[in-house]
Amino acid sequence: MYLPETVKVNNQNHLTMAGVDLVQLARTYGTPLYVYDEDLIRHNCRSYRDLLAKSYPDSRIAYAGKAFLTMAMCRLLQQEGLSLDVVSGGELYLAYKAGFPMEKIYFHGNNKSASELKMALELGVGRIVVDNRAELAQLAREAEKQGRSAAILLRVRPGVSAQTHHYIQTGQEDSKFGLGLSDGQLMAAVKEALKSPRITLCGLHCHIGSQILEARPFFLAAQVMVAALQEIHNKTGVALPELNLGGGLGIRYTREDRPYSRSDFLQMLARAVREKAEELNYPLPQLTLEPGRSIVGEAGLTLYTVGHVKELPGLRTYVPVDGGMTDNLRTALYEARYEAALANRVVGEPLQKVTIAGKACESSDIMIRDIELPAPQSGDILAVFSTGAYHHSMFSHYNRHLRPAVVFLSRGQAALVAERETYEELARLERIPAHLQLEQDAREEASGQ
Amino acid sequence: MYLPETVKVNNQNHLTMAGVDLVQLARTYGTPLYVYDEDLIRHNCRSYRDLLAKSYPDSRIAYAGKAFLTMAMCRLLQQEGLSLDVVSGGELYLAYKAGFPMEKIYFHGNNKSASELKMALELGVGRIVVDNRAELAQLAREAEKQGRSAAILLRVRPGVSAQTHHYIQTGQEDSKFGLGLSDGQLMAAVKEALKSPRITLCGLHCHIGSQILEARPFFLAAQVMVAALQEIHNKTGVALPELNLGGGLGIRYTREDRPYSRSDFLQMLARAVREKAEELNYPLPQLTLEPGRSIVGEAGLTLYTVGHVKELPGLRTYVPVDGGMTDNLRTALYEARYEAALANRVVGEPLQKVTIAGKACESSDIMIRDIELPAPQSGDILAVFSTGAYHHSMFSHYNRHLRPAVVFLSRGQAALVAERETYEELARLERIPAHLQLEQDAREEASGQ
Repeated sequence: MYLPETVKVNNQNHLTMAGVDLVQLARTYGTPLYVYDEDLIRHNCRSYRDLLAKSYPDSRIAYAGKAFLTMAMCRLLQQEGLSLDVVSGGELYLAYKAGFPMEKIYFHGNNKSASELKMALELGVGRIVVDNRAELAQLAREAEKQGRSAAILLRVRPGVSAQTHHYIQTGQEDSKFGLGLSDGQLMAAVKEALKSPRITLCGLHCHIGSQILEARPFFLAAQVMVAALQEIHNKTGVALPELNLGGGLGIRYTREDRPYSRSDFLQMLARAVREKAEELNYPLPQLTLEPGRSIVGEAGLTLYTVGHVKELPGLRTYVPVDGGMTDNLRTALYEARYEAALANRVVGEPLQKVTIAGKACESSDIMIRDIELPAPQSGDILAVFSTGAYHHSMFSHYNRHLRPAVVFLSRGQAALVAERETYEELARLERIPAHLQLEQDAREEASGQ
Repeated sequence: MYLPETVKVNNQNHLTMAGVDLVQLARTYGTPLYVYDEDLIRHNCRSYRDLLAKSYPDSRIAYAGKAFLTMAMCRLLQQEGLSLDVVSGGELYLAYKAGFPMEKIYFHGNNKSASELKMALELGVGRIVVDNRAELAQLAREAEKQGRSAAILLRVRPGVSAQTHHYIQTGQEDSKFGLGLSDGQLMAAVKEALKSPRITLCGLHCHIGSQILEARPFFLAAQVMVAALQEIHNKTGVALPELNLGGGLGIRYTREDRPYSRSDFLQMLARAVREKAEELNYPLPQLTLEPGRSIVGEAGLTLYTVGHVKELPGLRTYVPVDGGMTDNLRTALYEARYEAALANRVVGEPLQKVTIAGKACESSDIMIRDIELPAPQSGDILAVFSTGAYHHSMFSHYNRHLRPAVVFLSRGQAALVAERETYEELARLERIPAHLQLEQDAREEASGQ
């Protein structure tokens, strides 16, 4: 049996998280339920911030909101002194509505709309991370129109490929993101930005991928980026003061995953930047990292209720749960693997090899293939681990399943941060035009049509 | 250039659908926008219903709501006299709220919850399609409690594999769905159902997969199912009167796809059922089919606005649009392929080979690789075709993108059937617990903590 560090087993053989009995929690809030160890999220925020600062004093941690973002999460980040990386008007709106300090926001995106750029400027977002030269020109025009100044970073494709699922590489040359180094796009954008009176070019940004379990691509990218800063200095005389290396550090989903130690990683990354800067005689830039998954991923789990177990003799035993690909899209998207345990009977005999099946009307909706659990029965509560990142945020409305509630746990207390969707919510934005109204039918029938 | 039958080009070189200029439509409703040719949906409903009835008079068409379901769609189905297949309490709720006749509903699902079964019985759903014996027992208990009777079909795994993407096979032996034939589960369930005073067993159901482009697996499944009905007759003396063969007929996404002719398919499927029934001397059952994709898929398209085009010399030209994997999950899930055209410059020179990139912060968010279009520019309106099925219904909230509006077009008129989501909607169900309130911070600061 594999249990992640964030859960324990109490004397009732129930799973607990942050001192809360997860079986009780499922009874109170229902299932499926997204559950977060708030204390662990805070620990991860502080550890990222403090460990990086130890090796690299002039540094910032900006949490990558796309991994998991709610207003309560924004508040937590603010309390912990982190910055925030948002990738859309929607994420920006939530942060704004939560009262998050706008100057600590990095606004990303390969295709920001005119209205998103306008909104970012109006709200006074700290850094707009500009993807390409056309966006730069558009932003300059909008800033001129508003009579405001825009502080920006330029997104760079460092040409480094991270060894992970091919879908989530973003640093390679053939990518929809950012400005190329070798094709002269970055240098052209830098010159345009420096000439633009409404633009303050603060530095460079890159992001090489996601769920990366080796450190070398990060160090390579760091070196490439410092060299790019130095080249800009050589060609323009301007030493840009900021370097944002994005996120992407992998986490532990299963017992086989061996993520890099955060402490070692941050120390070595800081050293890679420092050494390259010293080698090139470049003044040390402010260093920003944007972890998302590695802050919330292992701090989350999802609780499900088991339905009727189906044994196919000689083939497989299916254990259906009341959620699936709608609340955990990663299984269907990346064939992602997970560990799990029965929250109400953590330790038990005999163990049975089963397959956890989702509730969606689609054969692909399989959550875990071949996991050993104490012979699951209808009504058991299943906890699937490491679901804190890219689960709630990727929720799909397929089959009109309702989005689960989200609960934060801290020191024995549970706090609801998002209510479960209701059937009524499903119909909120729907409209029935006149020619499809029931009255219309009645009239047509009456007139014999 | 490939254009599907549902669109035309007007004298302004704009794309039109059902007589509506799609460039005007994008201006009126904004993009991304889900657009449906209502006349084509109606034509497909009637053609399914009438063509099947011609070959097999005692027949029904139940539209598979999981492909695309809104309240307006329910109303249209009712006007066209179709039945409806739903797979969750959410879909059932929408149909109920739209006033759809409950007796024409088929309620599916591998893991219906107790509350869904209760709801289905209370609302008087026409047929509950029971997946397994434990669900049958649960339904019988609930029916007893409510003092109601439940009319059911039993879902069967016919052991037929459809040659399509492996993710969407559902008829094979190793599946989470239904009752096995060879392992005696079906016969056991039949006997239990026949003995249960609150259960009326009406027949059998199977569903062998989705987007199937060959007809043979359907005919095979039909024969297996009629044989199963006959075996039930032999062993129990009861000739079940209904056979529901599900859906799964493929559609045309790209010029390479060659779907089966609906008319040929229905004729041959009807013949397969009839011939097998005659061979086994079984009274012809009522035949139900459940098409979803093949009713709405080609009747839908999605309109996007092009952002800043990015040329990577020698590599690729990226054309970013203002939607992506959030409104078209099939690209990321199945690497699905699509055709597209510029709605505002349908015909134009020179053609350029480009890649359509989505707006999500994820490299996998590529909508179409290597399509030839008249050199796209920022502000162009791109129409992506055959997006009527499994797009709106699979919408993902990733990156907090807003769910697009949905418009039905008919005889030159546009009617809004779902409003575009707003930023305010994103925060509707979010809660900030006391310990994360801003006031709390203020107090802590004031007390020097």
